[in-house]
This record gives sequence, structure tokens and C-alpha cells, in this order.
Amino acid sequence: MIPGGLAFGVFSAGDGRRRVGARVGNHVVDVARVLGDATFAQPSLNAFLAGGPEAWAAACVRLTRLIERKAAPLVPLDSVTLHLPFQVADYVDFYSSIEHATNIGRIFRPDSEPLLPNWRHLPVGYHGRAGTVVVSGTPIVRPSGQLGAGEFGPTRKLDIEAEVGFVVGVGSPLGAPISVDAIDEHVFGVVLLNDWSGRDIQSWEGQPLGPFLGKSFATSISPWVVPLEALASARVTPPRQNPAPLPYLAAREPWGLDLALEVSVNGVVVSRPQFAGMYWTPAQQLAHLTANGARTRTGDLFASGTVSGPTRDQCGSLIELTWDGRDRLAFPDGSIRTYLEDGDTVTITATAPGGVDLGEVTGTVAPAFRPVGSA
Amino acid sequence: MIPGGLAFGVFSAGDGRRRVGARVGNHVVDVARVLGDATFAQPSLNAFLAGGPEAWAAACVRLTRLIERKAAPLVPLDSVTLHLPFQVADYVDFYSSIEHATNIGRIFRPDSEPLLPNWRHLPVGYHGRAGTVVVSGTPIVRPSGQLGAGEFGPTRKLDIEAEVGFVVGVGSPLGAPISVDAIDEHVFGVVLLNDWSGRDIQSWEGQPLGPFLGKSFATSISPWVVPLEALASARVTPPRQNPAPLPYLAAREPWGLDLALEVSVNGVVVSRPQFAGMYWTPAQQLAHLTANGARTRTGDLFASGTVSGPTRDQCGSLIELTWDGRDRLAFPDGSIRTYLEDGDTVTITATAPGGVDLGEVTGTVAPAFRPVGSA
Repeated sequence: MIPGGLAFGVFSAGDGRRRVGARVGNHVVDVARVLGDATFAQPSLNAFLAGGPEAWAAACVRLTRLIERKAAPLVPLDSVTLHLPFQVADYVDFYSSIEHATNIGRIFRPDSEPLLPNWRHLPVGYHGRAGTVVVSGTPIVRPSGQLGAGEFGPTRKLDIEAEVGFVVGVGSPLGAPISVDAIDEHVFGVVLLNDWSGRDIQSWEGQPLGPFLGKSFATSISPWVVPLEALASARVTPPRQNPAPLPYLAAREPWGLDLALEVSVNGVVVSRPQFAGMYWTPAQQLAHLTANGARTRTGDLFASGTVSGPTRDQCGSLIELTWDGRDRLAFPDGSIRTYLEDGDTVTITATAPGGVDLGEVTGTVAPAFRPVGSA
Repeated sequence: MIPGGLAFGVFSAGDGRRRVGARVGNHVVDVARVLGDATFAQPSLNAFLAGGPEAWAAACVRLTRLIERKAAPLVPLDSVTLHLPFQVADYVDFYSSIEHATNIGRIFRPDSEPLLPNWRHLPVGYHGRAGTVVVSGTPIVRPSGQLGAGEFGPTRKLDIEAEVGFVVGVGSPLGAPISVDAIDEHVFGVVLLNDWSGRDIQSWEGQPLGPFLGKSFATSISPWVVPLEALASARVTPPRQNPAPLPYLAAREPWGLDLALEVSVNGVVVSRPQFAGMYWTPAQQLAHLTANGARTRTGDLFASGTVSGPTRDQCGSLIELTWDGRDRLAFPDGSIRTYLEDGDTVTITATAPGGVDLGEVTGTVAPAFRPVGSA
């Protein structure tokens, strides 16, 4: 038994060479060295991810045995640098919390039905920018953009979205939808994800084609990918769906994940979203994503959308926690926040039953850069 | 002078090995062999693209000289197989024809102002699926999806969008927006693009996060990338913009491209869209795309959106040509169409002043595959 569970990432130490590491508590194991396998002597997990479920399980078994026998040299985590763990192919973001979608509907369309007509029929989602997925710890420069007609400047509504991301290991060819029961054959594991958002940019640009620059400046992920297999004991029955899902979304044994998230701003917990309450499951998201025949590739990342629960202190975004700035968050040191200020640090952590630690995704807001052509 | 102009792609011949080719009329030149440069002995243009404007120009000059001297062996085009010319990093699709956006607004929101309030202020766009960008000639399997509440099946409104795509050679780092005057330092060239669309899937899924499965099943591009430099004599003054663009979108010398497109269905020309009339320019699109600090990478592809002109026979999509099926296209053989039927072939070609031939992007519709779990 590895404390916190095994997780995989990419690290470098003294020589700067990036290679695959396995997290063991507060230490990291150089996997290529310990297993003598060149698949791991690479600057990304992609080659390992492409190996499929048997290769994933075999590596975990061998590593666990060597670590338990103390036959694997452990390097202190604080002596290494962690990097983006995999090369992101396509990035899709869903919108699968019914509480989050309802809250956003209430905030933006107070006079209409908060959930749009399609929401209970399909997991609504969109493609994000794969090239700006960054590893936890990367500074988040406050983005500039159009805030309304004729107005350009740094966002005044810099927000977070606490999410869980799923990493595709084994892709699927064009024209071959992935069954809702086949997620384990394709998805390697789970990361924590912060989908940073500039709400003013997003709301001005977003019609009719959806989020673009309000999101594409940065999406942070945790450096450690936790194998789905390590979360077997975290599987729970997801909320009942009404209407019943269409056949391609109806799993034989539907499951969600009992992940307890915590969102902190400057070290103070502001929210505790519960992933177990998500309406649409990861298996449904993957089946939907490929229902039209779209292929998937090693390194595809799909995320849950903001994880929010039924009470205010379970919401995974500041737009919900402050009701778009109408309310304020008060901190013990006397400071208050609606949206993020420069210098603020946001950290999302999560744990799962069975003692599994999903690590953290963190980022600190840096001031906006000077726009092109400004004096 | 090369007839039709030089263009770059990836081909294979007898040995199946993919490598970079240059198109010379109806022939292809094996660039690695002729130039003795390993940059071209690769299955994608990406290494060449990353070289930047000086490397691009040098290769064109050397190749042209060798071809004119008849010192470059020419292989007949019909004896080779053409492949996806570059590895697509991120794919962004814009919506930059004012006529197209107005037509779509009139069709879907007949009782409101057709252009949404943001349209004249910024080039509206969204991220598409990079992994399903395919080379011209790839069969287009009719996608299935949700067509409305509780209804799943093959799209009944399979459409095309005739577009022009721009290929990024030299990327830009996170936090460094690309000036609207710097496009030539980053963009290598141009492809023709067909953004296949299932209109019923798209309209049911699209709120509030925009197009997703209605587009992500396939996007076809031409096999030949025409260098932007070869289109120097096609540069024209774009339409006047009202209101004047914000400073980050205001080029010192704005330019559009005088490309004459032709859209054919089963060999019959149904439309002649003129790219010169596009409201937002490629330089504005690239400046906007990076205004928030998003980085770009070699292989990024951004497309114009449907190219439509002020008259019906200049529209680049069937939804406009048939006003969402209200009208019909009649063909000389007596057949009629609203949207595409299985077996239909759509081909988009384009030419530019100076005798430049942009080649073609073509695709034939294959019947829907059987949904998962069907008998």
C-alpha cells in the first residue's frame, strides 16, 4: 500500500532532463530507472498512456512491489521540478453539474428557466485550447480582452472553475464511437483542473459560438495523474437522471466518483465541492464526445465542468460564490474578494476514499501585461 | 515561374514513406531529395513550418530555380497519395463573413436584429477539434447525434462550409500577443477548408457553449498549403469596418485576399464565394486569438468561417443556399437537394490573381455507421 496511492507525472532534477516519475507520498520515483523501461524515459506520459490497461496495471503492480520492498530509490518531491505530465491532444470541457448550470442560468437569465432545454438530454460541452493547458504552479497572467463594445483591457472578473479532468490513454479511430461501458479501456486517469475564466470577456464574446478568449489564456492541471484504477473504491452511484438517458448514454452500471474537493484562496478554504453529485458521468461524457464518430487520441483531456453542489459553500467558482460580485467573500485577515486580485493564489485539492490523494492544482495571478502598442 | 505556383504538402509513392512534396502543376517534387535537406524527409510539414519566413523563402527560391532548370525530377500527381500536410496543433474557426453571419441570424432569429451586438467589434470564433481535421478525399461518414429531445440518429441536415484556413508556422509564447501587423512572421500559408456541419445536431446542442458534435466529426483541408508569400499579388483592401476596429485590431496596412472560390456538388457549381469580401481579416483573427496572451504553436490552424457574399449564388453553405431547406437546388440531371445525401461529393476550389491555384478540398458522403448497441 502506497500512502496516498501511486500517481504518475513528469519531473526533472539536477540534470534538467524530463522523465516520468511516480509519486510516493512526499517522494518521487524515477520510473524508467526503476523499471528499466524506456517508455518512461520521455518528457511526457504519452508513450505510457498509449500502452493501454494491461500495461498500466503491470507498471503499477511492479512499482508497488519495488517500493514496498524499498528497492526503488525515493527522491524528495521538494528537490524536483514538476512539468506538464502529458502532451495534450484535444481538450474538451463539459458543463455537467446541474447545480452549476442552474446557478449560471439564474445569474445570466434571471427571468427564464435556468436550465436550457437541452441540458438534461446531453452533456453540454465545447472544445477548449489544448496549447494553453499548463501545469500547476504556472503563473496566471491576468488576461486582457474586449470587455464590452469599444472597451479593451485587463479582465475585471478573473474567476476559477474547480474541475476534474480525465486523460485518454488509448484513442479510438474516426467513425468508431466509444461505448458508455468502455471508458476503462480508454481513460488512464484523473487530474485536478482549474479552468481560469475572465467572465467579462466571456460574456461579451460568447454569442453565438460559446467561450473563446475568456477561457483560452490558461487552464491549469495538477502535475500528478491518478490512475482510474486507483479510484476503484471511490466509485459511487451517480444521481438519478430524469429523463432517462438515451441508449448510447445508458451505462449498464453507471458510476460517479466520490472525490472531495477543496478550493482555497490565499490559503483559506472558500468551498468544498463534492464530485459525487455530478449529474453527467465521465463515461457519458466520453460516449457523447465520440457519438458522432469523432476520433480520440492519446493525450485527449476532457473535463467535468465546474463542480458545484446544492449549497453556496460547495460551489466551484467565484461567480457562484459571490453571485457575480453581488456578495463578497470575507477572509480572516479582513480582506474581501468578489473576483480575483493580482497576487491571489488559488489552490484546488482533492481526496478520495481508500486514502487516495489527488494532489493539488495551484496558480497565482500575475498582473496583466501591457497591451501591444501601449506606451 | 511555376504554373499555378509552388505549394507544399505531404505525399507517398511506391514505398509508402511519407515525405514533403512541392506541387508543380500536375506533378510533385520530392523536396528532401531535391534540396538534400532532412527537414523535408518527414511525414508532416511541421519542421519546415517552424523554420520561419527566411527558411520558407529560401526553400521556394531554391526549388523554383531547380524546377526551372529542369534539375528537379517531377513525379506525376496521379501516381502518388496525398496525406494530411501538417500535424494540427489547435484549430480555431472564425465567423468573419458579415453576409454569412447575417444570413444565419435571419434564418435562426427571424424576429431580431440578425447580427448580434458583438459581431462588428470582434472576430467571433471558437475552438474546433484538431484531431478530426482530415485531408481532402477522406470519406465523410454521415454523423449521428441528438437531433432534439429524446431523438438520436443520423443528421438530416448535413451541410458544408466553404472556408479558407491559415497555417501557423512560427508560434508565439504564452503572454505575448501577436501584433496585427506581424502575421507574416507567423503564418506560413493557406489551405482550403470544408467545415462539415450537421445543422440539426448543432442547433440542439449549441446553447450556451457553442458548436460541438455538430462540427467535430470531420473538417477537411486541401492537401496543398500555398505560401502566403505566393499570394502577395492577391492582397486587396478589405471592406471598411464600422465601427473602426480597436487599436489591437487596427493594422497599419490592412489586407484581405482576392481568392475566387467555387463550390461544386456532384460536379455542378452551386456557388462562387469571393474571399475578398470578408469583413474580418486573417491578421485581425490572429491578433484577436492571442490578445489574451494565448500562445500559438507550429501547426495551429485558424479558419475564416463560411465565405459568403451578398448574393445567394455566392454563399458558402447549403443552409444559406437553400435557406435551411425552404428552397431547393435543382441540378441539370433533374436531381434536387436541400442538404447533402449519401454519395454526394462536394468540392471546393479556388484561384488567385497571378495564376495561383489553391487546389481543391473534396469529400464524399458515406452512409451513417450503425449506432452502438443497435441490432
